[in-house]
Amino acid sequence: MAALEHGPAELITTARYVMGWEDTSGMPSSGGGKRIRPALCLFAAELFAADPNVAMPGAVAVELIHNFSLVHDEVQDHDAERHHRPTIWALRGEGQAINAGDFLIARALDALINGDGPSERRMAALSVLNAAMARMIAGQWDDISFESRTTVSPEEYLDMVRGKTGALLGAPLAMGALLAGASNDEATRLQEWGETVGLAFQVQDDYLGIWGDPNLTGKSNTNDIARKKKTLPVVHGLSSPGAAKLAALYEPETLNDDDVQAAVDVLEAVKSDAFTKAEGARLVSRANDLLADFELPLDSLGQLRAVGAYLIDRDS
Amino acid sequence: MAALEHGPAELITTARYVMGWEDTSGMPSSGGGKRIRPALCLFAAELFAADPNVAMPGAVAVELIHNFSLVHDEVQDHDAERHHRPTIWALRGEGQAINAGDFLIARALDALINGDGPSERRMAALSVLNAAMARMIAGQWDDISFESRTTVSPEEYLDMVRGKTGALLGAPLAMGALLAGASNDEATRLQEWGETVGLAFQVQDDYLGIWGDPNLTGKSNTNDIARKKKTLPVVHGLSSPGAAKLAALYEPETLNDDDVQAAVDVLEAVKSDAFTKAEGARLVSRANDLLADFELPLDSLGQLRAVGAYLIDRDS
Repeated sequence: MAALEHGPAELITTARYVMGWEDTSGMPSSGGGKRIRPALCLFAAELFAADPNVAMPGAVAVELIHNFSLVHDEVQDHDAERHHRPTIWALRGEGQAINAGDFLIARALDALINGDGPSERRMAALSVLNAAMARMIAGQWDDISFESRTTVSPEEYLDMVRGKTGALLGAPLAMGALLAGASNDEATRLQEWGETVGLAFQVQDDYLGIWGDPNLTGKSNTNDIARKKKTLPVVHGLSSPGAAKLAALYEPETLNDDDVQAAVDVLEAVKSDAFTKAEGARLVSRANDLLADFELPLDSLGQLRAVGAYLIDRDS
Repeated sequence: MAALEHGPAELITTARYVMGWEDTSGMPSSGGGKRIRPALCLFAAELFAADPNVAMPGAVAVELIHNFSLVHDEVQDHDAERHHRPTIWALRGEGQAINAGDFLIARALDALINGDGPSERRMAALSVLNAAMARMIAGQWDDISFESRTTVSPEEYLDMVRGKTGALLGAPLAMGALLAGASNDEATRLQEWGETVGLAFQVQDDYLGIWGDPNLTGKSNTNDIARKKKTLPVVHGLSSPGAAKLAALYEPETLNDDDVQAAVDVLEAVKSDAFTKAEGARLVSRANDLLADFELPLDSLGQLRAVGAYLIDRDS
């Protein structure tokens, strides 16, 4: 990929490793994530009957920005692995991981600044991406700051998720639309839809992290609480009357199995499970409303609904 | 400043503190650095007889990018103070310092993406800034990677400095020129001049860090060696015949006073002092050559020379 060719050899190798294109020795590899964001960008261009290639600069840019955010997140969370591969700070140290993330930002923006296509469309897409990046970073700031606060309201939590997770799911849709020549109105509508779907996804993930069936999700349903993650049910529970017991359970570094069960009991007593389910349903309904009077060809609308269902209606 | 108004309150306060606009409690303060980069950007617009205000989006952007780099550098170097104020990671932790730096990048680019003035000029300035940012980050990568290498050639060292320090001194000149409507050729010439001056500055700084008079520079002339900084004289010495003794002196974590003196003796024996002086002189001469056939009004050339002299001919 032209986006990651010029620079110090080790930095380029590292950046290509981050993207999942190469292994640590520079050999081609397949890996990395599901490439949802670039797919959304190309898909949005198709909704407006454009060749998806017109959205390629946006697709490249948003995937590089997503990967920048992963690299810096890993430093912040001290995650030593992602997708069963060592993370960059684990391989190269925190300083170089910070640099690698920073470098990915510059290369992401270059894809739009110097990519193919009419400059005013690229500038419009760049403006959307850059604003989404600022909101994503602000969400990340909030997420870290919430860790040291005793209570966070569900509204504050959802705002944080809208930035941290939603912004970079809505942006590629708007970018693809703008690169295909859609109006600002159409782009904004799609963007809000994508953000709302992203938010619904996270709320559902939060629900499944406590009440999901591990056999279906493939994930533990005790880890979130054992590691004291402040997910939506937890922030709801902690801000409910009867939170004193939950707060007390959350005082030690980690929770043992009995404490986890006790915490779940409190959450169910204050109906945090029902609250989370209702919130998820509200967001799905909001996403559908956003499509209801969207003037797009019927098959485009059908495709959007299918994408939404793929993102939201999953049990894993 | 409009650039830092929207976002989580604490993040905005932190970003404004980084810029030196406010103290930790959000009260106005004066401080921060010398604002050399925005001054160069406004100055470049004036060289082309434009109102310096046309370069304001570039001036804001480059100063925000400079501050992003400082915040991440401080995390990487574990510097607890800058300009006699606690650094962001010291105040808020490394994770939030990484976020604050990332946020400054997004806000920097916004100043050019959504600033006043013709969009093609802003896009041209943005392209220059973004490319300079990538080179600055690559230089920072090299700087850190050099720490764990036994030898670094003077050429590699100068390449690193050209990115780490030069790129963000050359870019604002090109940005100011482009925002004022100058040609790409004129912008590129100014940019190269700025980078060369920046490089000359660093080479002189390296010289003074060992052979400067502390009474004139206000800085220790033993710290660079005691802390094993790989400055130009040192990388020259280490790659010279007779380096074995220097390498041996550089094996412990830090050097005591006797070791520092012994290291200086080796550097002088292999003429690293003369090499560094000559390199500085070569760069100053190169900077002057770049101005020699530059078709600018005489008083503009005179001002450029004065700026160059201010940056280079200093003993502090």
